[in-house]
Amino acid sequence: MSEPLGVALVGCGTVGGGVARLLLEQPDRLTARAGRPLLLRRVVVRHPEKPRAVRIPPEILTTDLDIVLADPQVQVVAELVGGVEWARQAVCRILAAGKDVITANKALLATHGTEIFDAARKHGRAIAFEASVAGGVPIIAALTQSLAANQILSLQGILNGTSNFILSAMTETGQTYAQALAEAQERGYAEADPTLDIDGTDAAHKLAILAQIAYGMTVPLEAIERRGVGGIDSIDIRFAGELGYIIKLLAETWLSEGLLAAHVSPVLLRRHTPIAQVRGAYNAIHVTGDAVEDTLFYGKGAGQMPTASAVTADLIDLAIGRTQRLFQTQRLWSHDGPRLKMRPADSVRSRFYLRLLVDDRPGVLSEVASVLAQHQISIASVIQHEVPDLPAEQRVHLVIMTHTASTGYFRAACTKLDGLPFLSSPAVYYPVEDYKER
Amino acid sequence: MSEPLGVALVGCGTVGGGVARLLLEQPDRLTARAGRPLLLRRVVVRHPEKPRAVRIPPEILTTDLDIVLADPQVQVVAELVGGVEWARQAVCRILAAGKDVITANKALLATHGTEIFDAARKHGRAIAFEASVAGGVPIIAALTQSLAANQILSLQGILNGTSNFILSAMTETGQTYAQALAEAQERGYAEADPTLDIDGTDAAHKLAILAQIAYGMTVPLEAIERRGVGGIDSIDIRFAGELGYIIKLLAETWLSEGLLAAHVSPVLLRRHTPIAQVRGAYNAIHVTGDAVEDTLFYGKGAGQMPTASAVTADLIDLAIGRTQRLFQTQRLWSHDGPRLKMRPADSVRSRFYLRLLVDDRPGVLSEVASVLAQHQISIASVIQHEVPDLPAEQRVHLVIMTHTASTGYFRAACTKLDGLPFLSSPAVYYPVEDYKER
Repeated sequence: MSEPLGVALVGCGTVGGGVARLLLEQPDRLTARAGRPLLLRRVVVRHPEKPRAVRIPPEILTTDLDIVLADPQVQVVAELVGGVEWARQAVCRILAAGKDVITANKALLATHGTEIFDAARKHGRAIAFEASVAGGVPIIAALTQSLAANQILSLQGILNGTSNFILSAMTETGQTYAQALAEAQERGYAEADPTLDIDGTDAAHKLAILAQIAYGMTVPLEAIERRGVGGIDSIDIRFAGELGYIIKLLAETWLSEGLLAAHVSPVLLRRHTPIAQVRGAYNAIHVTGDAVEDTLFYGKGAGQMPTASAVTADLIDLAIGRTQRLFQTQRLWSHDGPRLKMRPADSVRSRFYLRLLVDDRPGVLSEVASVLAQHQISIASVIQHEVPDLPAEQRVHLVIMTHTASTGYFRAACTKLDGLPFLSSPAVYYPVEDYKER
Repeated sequence: MSEPLGVALVGCGTVGGGVARLLLEQPDRLTARAGRPLLLRRVVVRHPEKPRAVRIPPEILTTDLDIVLADPQVQVVAELVGGVEWARQAVCRILAAGKDVITANKALLATHGTEIFDAARKHGRAIAFEASVAGGVPIIAALTQSLAANQILSLQGILNGTSNFILSAMTETGQTYAQALAEAQERGYAEADPTLDIDGTDAAHKLAILAQIAYGMTVPLEAIERRGVGGIDSIDIRFAGELGYIIKLLAETWLSEGLLAAHVSPVLLRRHTPIAQVRGAYNAIHVTGDAVEDTLFYGKGAGQMPTASAVTADLIDLAIGRTQRLFQTQRLWSHDGPRLKMRPADSVRSRFYLRLLVDDRPGVLSEVASVLAQHQISIASVIQHEVPDLPAEQRVHLVIMTHTASTGYFRAACTKLDGLPFLSSPAVYYPVEDYKER
């Protein structure tokens, strides 16, 4: 039997508690898998006296990170506190103290990846971060090793469980956005302040990490155009359904003509595909590689034990010594990665779903079609339902699916349409996935 | 730059040709990922003069495995010939010559895993086999490392592309089994003799490999009850659709009450789930772990480049030195694994779909219900459509969905039903997935 691996946790909330549970309750299993014991030596918390679901031996609880840094029996520290600034400093100090780091902190990686990976390289340590994207779904391992023979062509992720829960509830039960958000909050799937989830920022953080691994590119958050699910109208979900589509919040990045495109947006997906059936708090990532072709990785995107499963897999890999090997070979968040240019959002070509609330009078469709034609946008299909014959109902939804068009031209057309007198509210539009030209 | 890794291929058919293509056409990419060059030093083929899609330098082609065994510049040999007996001897000789082995040969692993893994341990070498199950889908890596913190509770795989292509074609186009099989053969998805695919043997081989990794158990093929797609009736696919289900050939193994169950069978799956939407030649594996909960891994189950992607990922892992670390820690196909007992098929509890072709006369449903009740089988729903009022149509399909029942009791009931005078042909039945008690 080899020497035990000494582990410390920084943070013992949901995820930290789950990791502690596995370490304390499954020592035999983990020893067998890692080839040596994984010993929980220290747990850094803010409030040691707080009652916890998992019983941590009181003598290993501390409020002082310095005790961990000075402990020669700790070889790996898992940073599970979240937030950026304190975590950044803590991770840099842990690496400087000669210890390997595991982190589940997507915001930290997305915003300070270069700094902390440089620190790790400088100190000869490794960083593992499987839990930072998509919880229990092993997408980091898939991209770093299982698909390593491939040039990744595209990544499409359902990466934010809150957004996916809201969209699924709206699709399946016909709830409004406000109702679905309230239910998500009630069930604990959404924070009291859900801003970062519903505006697409959380998904963009995760996408930046995936793009780093797939393309070696540090994609700044401001280069990822973001539209979240906030305020999405249930009528669009209904029309999408009528057309055979489901709306999902996708975080996507793909290569085309040597440029890297990236965005977060609600997108219409064909209903009868595995990714369209990813419901509730599940996450999934569809990866296309030039050799492997299409793949999909699916699972719980958050939650105590699914995320703890990912952190503990990282611990096992460090115990076996595999992460260190990989870390030395790869050069993530390094300065000598490829320098791909980002594709401007306007030049992305896509099909679009377009909904216009228009006056129900002659000539409207003709004028809309004419604006689209002027912008070289070709119409694939149109839905306009008859409205009840009542004086109050003088407006009608006009839904148009376009053929593939340039996003820039399409948006210019929408701006033009928004200025027309018969439009009651601005044009609503989303990309349609299946025919996107790449 | 480290020393190159010297690679030999044994076999240069579909998969070997794909691996050769990656090695010869993408040297920069693979060197970057592996941290050192992967050099193709030898290719063992039967007919060196045969024209090939990828141009192999003639000086590295040979018909003689001994040349590879004696070549000190070859450190890894990928066995990509298929078949069992020749491959078994070749792999043992390669290991004895001090070289690591990659194999895509599921039949070899399923039937001689213990022998070749013992040989690898004896000679201090490693065996990698990602490509042996589900082509480009990295299910071996997922089970051996990404989910290593888990007790695997169940595995359900769509592992045979031929069967899935046939069932998808029948479901989507209403083809008969014979028509769908003919189309699969025309398109190259089915062999001229498709026996091992359509009788479930191929899926059982792959299931045995997955069970070995998940449970450390060597499950003999004869312990895996097999029903293939051969002769499946399109009427059952239609009735399943009417009930909201899709029929898939699943290879499943799961733990319950300390016993390991395993079978290959057509199964009814709820339509609106990711696994039910796995179509055509795609494969997928649904894995449930006690920490990670539900996960799904999806991709091309066969084909030149998807399978080559998996083999080349194994080469990269060997070049980095990660496989060797894992191999020493795990003890696959070893004699000291856990000794789980297999669950007898009769004791598995499941819901069932049952279709009876019966005379259209009074008292039939009552008698059927009575036989089921005698065997403690409770009926969840019944479909019997009106038949056209013609003298020729005196028989009718009676479709029953049961509540959860013991397989043994259920089969006894079917035997009893088959003996009743109003049945025109034997009862047809399949398990129903979603409510299986585990």
